[in-house]
Amino acid sequence: MSTSRRTFIAAAATVAAATSGASAAVNTYPKLAHHVFFWLKNPGSKEDLAKLLAGLKTLTAIETVRGAHFGVPASTEKRDVVDNSYSASEILFFDDLAGQKIYQDHAVHKKFVADCSHLWERVVVYDAMSA
Amino acid sequence: MSTSRRTFIAAAATVAAATSGASAAVNTYPKLAHHVFFWLKNPGSKEDLAKLLAGLKTLTAIETVRGAHFGVPASTEKRDVVDNSYSASEILFFDDLAGQKIYQDHAVHKKFVADCSHLWERVVVYDAMSA
Repeated sequence: MSTSRRTFIAAAATVAAATSGASAAVNTYPKLAHHVFFWLKNPGSKEDLAKLLAGLKTLTAIETVRGAHFGVPASTEKRDVVDNSYSASEILFFDDLAGQKIYQDHAVHKKFVADCSHLWERVVVYDAMSA
Repeated sequence: MSTSRRTFIAAAATVAAATSGASAAVNTYPKLAHHVFFWLKNPGSKEDLAKLLAGLKTLTAIETVRGAHFGVPASTEKRDVVDNSYSASEILFFDDLAGQKIYQDHAVHKKFVADCSHLWERVVVYDAMSA
């Protein structure tokens, strides 16, 4: 089945789970979180943002992606520690380092970079392993 | 039920879902992703890191938290765009801005800041709404 299907089912299960009961545990999302923040060359261009988001969403077709969240700055409270200067964000979850490596080298990822990298002027990646 | 229970069930469902079939959709994690990166004052202190991670894990008791991932830099490939200088990371998912505000003002969050803020020298927050 496709990754997008898995993502959908996981989210549906989250909703269902909120009303049921089971034993407790924390920190059980897939182990490797790949956070990426993009700053567009033309931050005011809705068209460029739409192209970038469309490109990001193709990445869920990669078979090792276990979950995804794509976003734009939220209108949370302004605080000194909050960076809302970016244009778009990506979180992809992988089971392990090997899954992330397959993603990096995958044709779908390379096509995304080829199609969209002219849109951004800066990108910052944080890869985090569950701890 | 507790948030930690919900998190556990959601993850268990993700595993189960990976082997089943259903209709496709993407980007269905809870809408608001709250990413936080911490740089410790003493980045070499395993004790300080353990205290910070233990403090972070208390945050899942807040009733509006729908999912959580706590991590440390992963040993992915070194690339210019990858920032692995931080000490610990946090992702919390909320349904909406209101859920995030309840979290910010919650006694459990205030206790975490009171107990742990002396440990870090820098914190960066990115709040991202699904797009």
